[in-house]
Amino acid sequence: MIKGEVFVLSAPAGGGKTTLANLLLKEVPNLVRITTCTTRKPRPGEKNGIDYFFLSKEEFQQKIKENAFLEYAIVHGNYYGTPKEEVLKEINKGNDVLLVIDVQGMRQIKKNFKDVVTIFLIPPSFEELINRMKKRGDSEEEIKKRIETAKIELKAWKEYDYIVINDIIEKAKEDLKKIIFASRLKTTRFSPEILGDKILKELMED
Amino acid sequence: MIKGEVFVLSAPAGGGKTTLANLLLKEVPNLVRITTCTTRKPRPGEKNGIDYFFLSKEEFQQKIKENAFLEYAIVHGNYYGTPKEEVLKEINKGNDVLLVIDVQGMRQIKKNFKDVVTIFLIPPSFEELINRMKKRGDSEEEIKKRIETAKIELKAWKEYDYIVINDIIEKAKEDLKKIIFASRLKTTRFSPEILGDKILKELMED
Repeated sequence: MIKGEVFVLSAPAGGGKTTLANLLLKEVPNLVRITTCTTRKPRPGEKNGIDYFFLSKEEFQQKIKENAFLEYAIVHGNYYGTPKEEVLKEINKGNDVLLVIDVQGMRQIKKNFKDVVTIFLIPPSFEELINRMKKRGDSEEEIKKRIETAKIELKAWKEYDYIVINDIIEKAKEDLKKIIFASRLKTTRFSPEILGDKILKELMED
Repeated sequence: MIKGEVFVLSAPAGGGKTTLANLLLKEVPNLVRITTCTTRKPRPGEKNGIDYFFLSKEEFQQKIKENAFLEYAIVHGNYYGTPKEEVLKEINKGNDVLLVIDVQGMRQIKKNFKDVVTIFLIPPSFEELINRMKKRGDSEEEIKKRIETAKIELKAWKEYDYIVINDIIEKAKEDLKKIIFASRLKTTRFSPEILGDKILKELMED
Protein backbone atom coordinates (compact mmCIF):
# COMPACT_ATOMS: atom_id res chain seq x y z
CA MET A 1 0.00 0.00 0.00
CA ILE A 2 1.37 3.39 -1.03
CA LYS A 3 1.01 5.96 1.72
CA GLY A 4 -0.88 9.21 1.29
CA GLU A 5 0.61 12.62 1.83
CA VAL A 6 -0.13 15.61 4.03
CA PHE A 7 -1.07 18.88 2.33
CA VAL A 8 -1.01 22.01 4.44
CA LEU A 9 -3.09 24.95 3.27
CA SER A 10 -2.50 28.27 5.00
CA ALA A 11 -3.73 31.78 4.34
CA PRO A 12 -4.19 34.98 6.28
CA ALA A 13 -7.70 35.23 7.81
CA GLY A 14 -10.03 36.21 4.99
CA GLY A 15 -7.77 34.54 2.43
CA GLY A 16 -10.55 32.15 1.43
CA LYS A 17 -8.92 28.97 2.68
CA THR A 18 -12.05 27.41 4.16
CA THR A 19 -14.16 27.86 1.01
CA LEU A 20 -11.42 26.45 -1.20
CA ALA A 21 -10.67 23.55 1.13
CA ASN A 22 -14.34 22.55 1.09
CA LEU A 23 -14.42 22.61 -2.72
CA LEU A 24 -11.28 20.47 -2.93
CA LEU A 25 -12.58 17.94 -0.44
CA LYS A 26 -15.73 17.60 -2.53
CA GLU A 27 -13.99 17.32 -5.91
CA VAL A 28 -10.68 15.53 -5.30
CA PRO A 29 -10.97 11.78 -4.71
CA ASN A 30 -9.01 10.34 -1.78
CA LEU A 31 -8.45 13.76 -0.28
CA VAL A 32 -9.72 13.89 3.27
CA ARG A 33 -10.08 16.37 6.04
CA ILE A 34 -9.04 15.91 9.62
CA THR A 35 -11.31 17.51 12.14
CA THR A 36 -9.13 19.67 14.36
CA CYS A 37 -9.58 20.41 18.01
CA THR A 38 -10.17 23.90 19.39
CA THR A 39 -11.05 25.63 22.60
CA ARG A 40 -12.75 28.55 20.86
CA LYS A 41 -16.51 28.91 21.12
CA PRO A 42 -18.50 27.52 18.19
CA ARG A 43 -19.75 30.15 15.70
CA PRO A 44 -23.44 29.94 14.76
CA GLY A 45 -23.97 26.85 12.61
CA GLU A 46 -20.70 25.13 13.50
CA LYS A 47 -21.06 21.54 14.61
CA ASN A 48 -18.89 19.65 17.09
CA GLY A 49 -16.99 16.79 15.43
CA ILE A 50 -17.63 18.23 11.98
CA ASP A 51 -16.25 21.77 11.92
CA TYR A 52 -14.05 21.23 14.97
CA PHE A 53 -13.83 19.12 18.06
CA PHE A 54 -14.74 21.78 20.60
CA LEU A 55 -12.78 21.06 23.77
CA SER A 56 -12.45 22.82 27.09
CA LYS A 57 -9.08 24.33 27.90
CA GLU A 58 -8.48 21.56 30.44
CA GLU A 59 -9.25 18.78 27.96
CA PHE A 60 -6.99 20.39 25.40
CA GLN A 61 -4.07 20.77 27.80
CA GLN A 62 -4.43 17.14 28.83
CA LYS A 63 -4.08 16.12 25.16
CA ILE A 64 -0.97 18.28 24.80
CA LYS A 65 0.56 16.39 27.72
CA GLU A 66 -0.29 13.11 25.99
CA ASN A 67 1.53 14.37 22.87
CA ALA A 68 -1.65 13.80 20.89
CA PHE A 69 -1.26 16.77 18.53
CA LEU A 70 0.78 16.93 15.37
CA GLU A 71 0.72 20.67 15.83
CA TYR A 72 -1.11 23.07 18.04
CA ALA A 73 -1.16 26.79 18.45
CA ILE A 74 -2.74 29.55 20.45
CA VAL A 75 -4.45 32.13 18.24
CA HIS A 76 -6.28 35.08 19.80
CA GLY A 77 -6.25 33.23 23.11
CA ASN A 78 -7.76 30.01 21.73
CA TYR A 79 -6.07 26.65 21.26
CA TYR A 80 -6.16 24.87 17.88
CA GLY A 81 -4.66 21.42 17.34
CA THR A 82 -4.44 18.59 14.79
CA PRO A 83 -4.88 15.12 16.29
CA LYS A 84 -1.86 13.05 15.21
CA GLU A 85 -3.60 9.68 15.27
CA GLU A 86 -6.28 10.75 12.79
CA VAL A 87 -3.71 11.97 10.27
CA LEU A 88 -1.61 8.79 10.45
CA LYS A 89 -4.72 6.64 10.09
CA GLU A 90 -5.67 8.36 6.83
CA ILE A 91 -2.23 8.44 5.19
CA ASN A 92 -1.69 4.79 6.07
CA LYS A 93 -4.94 4.04 4.24
CA GLY A 94 -3.46 5.78 1.17
CA ASN A 95 -5.56 8.92 1.50
CA ASP A 96 -4.16 12.42 1.19
CA VAL A 97 -4.87 14.67 4.14
CA LEU A 98 -5.71 18.34 3.72
CA LEU A 99 -4.84 20.41 6.78
CA VAL A 100 -6.07 23.98 6.92
CA ILE A 101 -3.75 25.50 9.49
CA ASP A 102 -1.95 28.74 10.18
CA VAL A 103 1.70 29.66 9.79
CA GLN A 104 2.62 28.52 13.29
CA GLY A 105 0.98 25.14 12.69
CA MET A 106 2.77 24.72 9.36
CA ARG A 107 6.10 25.22 11.09
CA GLN A 108 5.38 22.48 13.60
CA ILE A 109 4.05 20.09 10.94
CA LYS A 110 7.19 20.51 8.85
CA LYS A 111 9.21 19.32 11.84
CA ASN A 112 7.06 16.23 12.25
CA PHE A 113 6.60 15.25 8.59
CA LYS A 114 9.36 15.00 6.04
CA ASP A 115 7.15 14.81 2.99
CA VAL A 116 4.49 17.39 3.77
CA VAL A 117 3.45 19.68 0.90
CA THR A 118 2.78 23.23 2.05
CA ILE A 119 0.65 25.73 0.15
CA PHE A 120 0.16 29.41 0.93
CA LEU A 121 -2.94 31.10 -0.37
CA ILE A 122 -2.80 34.86 -0.81
CA PRO A 123 -5.60 37.32 -1.58
CA PRO A 124 -5.36 39.38 -4.78
CA SER A 125 -5.07 42.58 -2.71
CA PHE A 126 -4.90 43.68 0.90
CA GLU A 127 -8.20 45.53 0.55
CA GLU A 128 -9.90 42.35 -0.62
CA LEU A 129 -8.57 40.59 2.47
CA ILE A 130 -10.22 43.18 4.71
CA ASN A 131 -13.44 43.06 2.69
CA ARG A 132 -13.64 39.30 3.15
CA MET A 133 -13.15 39.64 6.90
CA LYS A 134 -15.98 42.19 7.02
CA LYS A 135 -18.29 39.99 4.93
CA ARG A 136 -17.72 37.15 7.34
CA GLY A 137 -19.21 39.32 10.09
CA ASP A 138 -16.10 39.68 12.26
CA SER A 139 -16.33 42.54 14.80
CA GLU A 140 -14.29 45.76 14.32
CA GLU A 141 -11.95 44.77 17.13
CA GLU A 142 -11.49 41.25 15.76
CA ILE A 143 -10.79 42.66 12.30
CA LYS A 144 -8.08 44.95 13.70
CA LYS A 145 -6.41 42.01 15.46
CA ARG A 146 -6.70 39.86 12.35
CA ILE A 147 -5.18 42.52 10.12
CA GLU A 148 -2.11 42.65 12.35
CA THR A 149 -1.87 38.85 12.30
CA ALA A 150 -2.34 38.81 8.51
CA LYS A 151 0.53 41.26 8.09
CA ILE A 152 2.86 39.00 10.05
CA GLU A 153 1.60 35.84 8.35
CA LEU A 154 2.07 37.22 4.84
CA LYS A 155 5.77 37.55 5.55
CA ALA A 156 6.00 33.76 5.97
CA TRP A 157 5.23 33.02 2.31
CA LYS A 158 8.80 31.95 1.53
CA GLU A 159 8.55 29.07 4.00
CA TYR A 160 5.92 27.37 1.85
CA ASP A 161 6.43 25.04 -1.11
CA TYR A 162 3.70 26.59 -3.26
CA ILE A 163 1.92 29.91 -3.52
CA VAL A 164 -1.55 30.32 -4.99
CA ILE A 165 -3.27 33.65 -5.60
CA ASN A 166 -6.95 33.48 -4.72
CA ASP A 167 -8.39 36.07 -7.06
CA ILE A 168 -10.89 34.06 -9.09
CA ILE A 169 -11.93 31.13 -6.92
CA GLU A 170 -12.30 28.66 -9.85
CA LYS A 171 -8.76 29.43 -10.97
CA ALA A 172 -7.36 29.07 -7.46
CA LYS A 173 -9.18 25.75 -7.10
CA GLU A 174 -7.70 24.42 -10.34
CA ASP A 175 -4.22 25.54 -9.25
CA LEU A 176 -4.60 23.68 -5.97
CA LYS A 177 -5.79 20.57 -7.80
CA LYS A 178 -2.75 20.65 -10.06
CA ILE A 179 -0.49 20.73 -7.01
CA ILE A 180 -2.28 17.76 -5.44
CA PHE A 181 -2.49 15.67 -8.63
CA ALA A 182 1.13 16.38 -9.61
CA SER A 183 2.17 15.33 -6.14
CA ARG A 184 0.51 11.98 -6.66
CA LEU A 185 2.82 11.38 -9.63
CA LYS A 186 5.95 11.71 -7.52
CA THR A 187 8.30 8.74 -7.64
CA THR A 188 8.10 8.49 -3.86
CA ARG A 189 4.43 7.68 -4.33
CA PHE A 190 4.94 5.03 -6.98
CA SER A 191 5.42 1.32 -6.56
CA PRO A 192 5.91 -1.25 -9.37
CA GLU A 193 3.27 -3.28 -7.48
CA ILE A 194 0.54 -1.26 -9.19
CA LEU A 195 1.66 -2.34 -12.68
CA GLY A 196 -0.45 -4.93 -14.43
CA ASP A 197 2.40 -6.15 -16.62
CA LYS A 198 4.47 -8.89 -14.98
CA ILE A 199 7.71 -8.39 -16.99
CA LEU A 200 7.72 -4.62 -16.45
CA LYS A 201 6.97 -5.09 -12.77
CA GLU A 202 9.86 -7.51 -12.31
CA LEU A 203 12.27 -5.26 -14.20
CA MET A 204 11.37 -2.26 -12.08
CA GLU A 205 11.37 -4.10 -8.78
CA ASP A 206 14.88 -5.44 -9.41
CA MET B 1 12.29 38.54 -14.09
CA ILE B 2 11.53 35.11 -12.65
CA LYS B 3 13.68 32.41 -14.16
CA GLY B 4 12.28 29.39 -15.94
CA GLU B 5 12.99 25.83 -14.98
CA VAL B 6 14.48 22.78 -16.68
CA PHE B 7 12.23 19.73 -17.13
CA VAL B 8 13.90 16.48 -18.05
CA LEU B 9 11.78 13.83 -19.75
CA SER B 10 13.28 10.36 -20.06
CA ALA B 11 11.88 7.04 -21.19
CA PRO B 12 13.20 3.79 -22.55
CA ALA B 13 13.31 3.78 -26.38
CA GLY B 14 9.75 3.24 -27.56
CA GLY B 15 8.37 4.83 -24.40
CA GLY B 16 6.68 7.54 -26.44
CA LYS B 17 8.73 10.48 -25.19
CA THR B 18 9.12 12.23 -28.54
CA THR B 19 5.40 12.18 -29.37
CA LEU B 20 4.49 13.47 -25.91
CA ALA B 21 7.21 16.12 -25.90
CA ASN B 22 5.93 17.47 -29.21
CA LEU B 23 2.36 17.68 -27.88
CA LEU B 24 3.51 19.49 -24.75
CA LEU B 25 5.59 21.97 -26.71
CA LYS B 26 2.55 22.75 -28.83
CA GLU B 27 0.08 23.09 -25.97
CA VAL B 28 2.01 24.51 -22.99
CA PRO B 29 2.81 28.22 -23.24
CA ASN B 30 6.38 29.24 -22.42
CA LEU B 31 7.65 25.70 -22.68
CA VAL B 32 10.45 25.47 -25.17
CA ARG B 33 12.65 22.84 -26.68
CA ILE B 34 16.40 22.94 -27.01
CA THR B 35 17.76 21.37 -30.14
CA THR B 36 20.40 18.89 -29.06
CA CYS B 37 23.55 17.92 -30.89
CA THR B 38 24.29 14.44 -32.13
CA THR B 39 26.77 12.57 -34.25
CA ARG B 40 24.28 9.92 -35.33
CA LYS B 41 23.10 9.89 -38.94
CA PRO B 42 19.78 11.64 -39.60
CA ARG B 43 16.78 9.29 -39.98
CA PRO B 44 14.57 9.88 -43.02
CA GLY B 45 12.66 13.13 -42.54
CA GLU B 46 14.85 14.49 -39.73
CA LYS B 47 16.09 18.03 -40.28
CA ASN B 48 19.36 19.55 -39.10
CA GLY B 49 18.79 22.35 -36.57
CA ILE B 50 15.23 21.21 -35.95
CA ASP B 51 15.34 17.58 -34.88
CA TYR B 52 19.02 17.71 -33.94
CA PHE B 53 22.16 19.57 -34.76
CA PHE B 54 23.94 16.85 -36.70
CA LEU B 55 27.65 17.19 -36.03
CA SER B 56 30.69 15.20 -37.06
CA LYS B 57 32.53 13.34 -34.32
CA GLU B 58 35.35 15.87 -34.55
CA GLU B 59 33.02 18.87 -34.19
CA PHE B 60 31.32 17.24 -31.23
CA GLN B 61 34.58 16.44 -29.43
CA GLN B 62 35.73 20.03 -29.93
CA LYS B 63 32.56 21.24 -28.20
CA ILE B 64 33.16 18.84 -25.31
CA LYS B 65 36.60 20.40 -24.85
CA GLU B 66 34.97 23.86 -24.82
CA ASN B 67 32.64 22.65 -22.05
CA ALA B 68 29.70 23.62 -24.24
CA PHE B 69 27.37 20.80 -23.16
CA LEU B 70 25.18 20.65 -20.11
CA GLU B 71 25.24 16.90 -20.55
CA TYR B 72 26.40 14.54 -23.23
CA ALA B 73 26.44 10.81 -23.61
CA ILE B 74 27.44 8.09 -25.99
CA VAL B 75 24.53 5.82 -26.90
CA HIS B 76 25.01 2.94 -29.34
CA GLY B 77 28.28 4.56 -30.44
CA ASN B 78 26.76 7.98 -31.15
CA TYR B 79 27.25 11.21 -29.18
CA TYR B 80 24.27 13.21 -27.92
CA GLY B 81 24.63 16.55 -26.12
CA THR B 82 22.62 19.52 -24.81
CA PRO B 83 24.16 22.90 -25.56
CA LYS B 84 24.46 24.77 -22.25
CA GLU B 85 24.19 28.27 -23.67
CA GLU B 86 20.82 27.61 -25.31
CA VAL B 87 19.31 26.33 -22.06
CA LEU B 88 20.54 29.28 -20.00
CA LYS B 89 19.26 31.73 -22.60
CA GLU B 90 15.75 30.33 -22.38
CA ILE B 91 15.48 30.02 -18.60
CA ASN B 92 16.84 33.54 -18.19
CA LYS B 93 14.02 34.73 -20.46
CA GLY B 94 11.56 33.05 -18.08
CA ASN B 95 10.81 30.12 -20.35
CA ASP B 96 10.68 26.52 -19.17
CA VAL B 97 12.94 24.17 -21.05
CA LEU B 98 11.89 20.63 -21.92
CA LEU B 99 14.84 18.29 -22.36
CA VAL B 100 14.18 14.85 -23.79
CA ILE B 101 17.24 12.95 -22.69
CA ASP B 102 18.22 9.50 -21.49
CA VAL B 103 19.10 8.27 -18.03
CA GLN B 104 22.80 9.09 -18.37
CA GLY B 105 21.97 12.65 -19.45
CA MET B 106 19.57 13.09 -16.55
CA ARG B 107 22.35 12.17 -14.13
CA GLN B 108 24.67 14.81 -15.53
CA ILE B 109 21.95 17.47 -15.64
CA LYS B 110 21.14 16.88 -11.99
CA LYS B 111 24.74 17.69 -11.11
CA ASN B 112 24.63 20.95 -13.08
CA PHE B 113 21.16 22.20 -12.08
CA LYS B 114 19.82 22.32 -8.56
CA ASP B 115 16.21 22.91 -9.46
CA VAL B 116 15.73 20.58 -12.39
CA VAL B 117 12.47 18.61 -12.46
CA THR B 118 12.94 15.06 -13.74
CA ILE B 119 10.16 12.92 -15.18
CA PHE B 120 10.35 9.25 -16.17
CA LEU B 121 7.86 7.96 -18.68
CA ILE B 122 7.13 4.26 -18.64
CA PRO B 123 5.16 2.13 -21.11
CA PRO B 124 2.08 0.25 -19.84
CA SER B 125 3.80 -3.07 -20.53
CA PHE B 126 7.10 -4.43 -21.78
CA GLU B 127 5.40 -5.95 -24.82
CA GLU B 128 4.00 -2.55 -25.79
CA LEU B 129 7.52 -1.12 -25.59
CA ILE B 130 8.75 -3.70 -28.10
CA ASN B 131 5.71 -3.14 -30.33
CA ARG B 132 6.43 0.58 -30.46
CA MET B 133 10.06 -0.07 -31.42
CA LYS B 134 8.89 -2.35 -34.23
CA LYS B 135 6.31 0.18 -35.47
CA ARG B 136 9.06 2.78 -35.66
CA GLY B 137 10.85 0.60 -38.16
CA ASP B 138 13.94 -0.21 -36.08
CA SER B 139 15.93 -3.20 -37.38
CA GLU B 140 15.91 -6.55 -35.55
CA GLU B 141 19.45 -5.99 -34.35
CA GLU B 142 18.70 -2.43 -33.19
CA ILE B 143 15.62 -3.65 -31.36
CA LYS B 144 17.69 -6.28 -29.51
CA LYS B 145 20.20 -3.61 -28.43
CA ARG B 146 17.42 -1.24 -27.42
CA ILE B 147 15.65 -3.88 -25.35
CA GLU B 148 18.82 -4.46 -23.35
CA THR B 149 19.23 -0.70 -22.85
CA ALA B 150 15.56 -0.36 -21.89
CA LYS B 151 15.95 -3.04 -19.23
CA ILE B 152 18.85 -1.15 -17.65
CA GLU B 153 17.13 2.24 -17.98
CA LEU B 154 13.92 1.03 -16.36
CA LYS B 155 15.88 0.32 -13.19
CA ALA B 156 16.73 4.03 -12.92
CA TRP B 157 13.12 5.08 -12.21
CA LYS B 158 13.80 5.86 -8.55
CA GLU B 159 16.29 8.57 -9.50
CA TYR B 160 13.49 10.66 -11.05
CA ASP B 161 11.16 13.11 -9.32
CA TYR B 162 8.02 12.00 -11.15
CA ILE B 163 6.81 8.89 -12.92
CA VAL B 164 4.15 8.92 -15.63
CA ILE B 165 2.64 5.82 -17.23
CA ASN B 166 2.15 6.29 -20.95
CA ASP B 167 -0.80 4.00 -21.58
CA ILE B 168 -3.39 6.39 -23.02
CA ILE B 169 -1.49 9.25 -24.58
CA GLU B 170 -4.08 11.92 -23.68
CA LYS B 171 -3.90 10.90 -20.03
CA ALA B 172 -0.10 10.89 -20.02
CA LYS B 173 -0.10 14.34 -21.61
CA GLU B 174 -2.44 15.72 -18.96
CA ASP B 175 -0.29 14.21 -16.22
CA LEU B 176 2.80 15.87 -17.67
CA LYS B 177 0.97 19.20 -17.89
CA LYS B 178 -0.03 18.97 -14.23
CA ILE B 179 3.60 18.46 -13.26
CA ILE B 180 4.70 21.48 -15.31
CA PHE B 181 1.88 23.79 -14.18
CA ALA B 182 2.21 22.80 -10.52
CA SER B 183 5.91 23.51 -10.77
CA ARG B 184 5.15 27.05 -11.89
CA LEU B 185 3.29 27.59 -8.62
CA LYS B 186 6.35 26.84 -6.51
CA THR B 187 7.38 29.56 -4.10
CA THR B 188 10.84 29.56 -5.66
CA ARG B 189 9.14 30.77 -8.83
CA PHE B 190 7.13 33.54 -7.19
CA SER B 191 8.05 37.13 -6.66
CA PRO B 192 5.87 39.82 -5.01
CA GLU B 193 6.85 41.98 -8.01
CA ILE B 194 4.11 40.36 -10.03
CA LEU B 195 1.37 41.52 -7.65
CA GLY B 196 -0.77 44.42 -8.79
CA ASP B 197 -1.62 45.50 -5.24
CA LYS B 198 0.88 47.93 -3.74
CA ILE B 199 0.16 47.23 -0.05
CA LEU B 200 0.31 43.46 -0.48
CA LYS B 201 3.47 43.76 -2.51
CA GLU B 202 5.19 45.84 0.16
CA LEU B 203 4.11 43.52 2.95
CA MET B 204 5.45 40.48 1.11
CA GLU B 205 8.69 42.08 0.02
CA ASP B 206 9.51 43.16 3.56
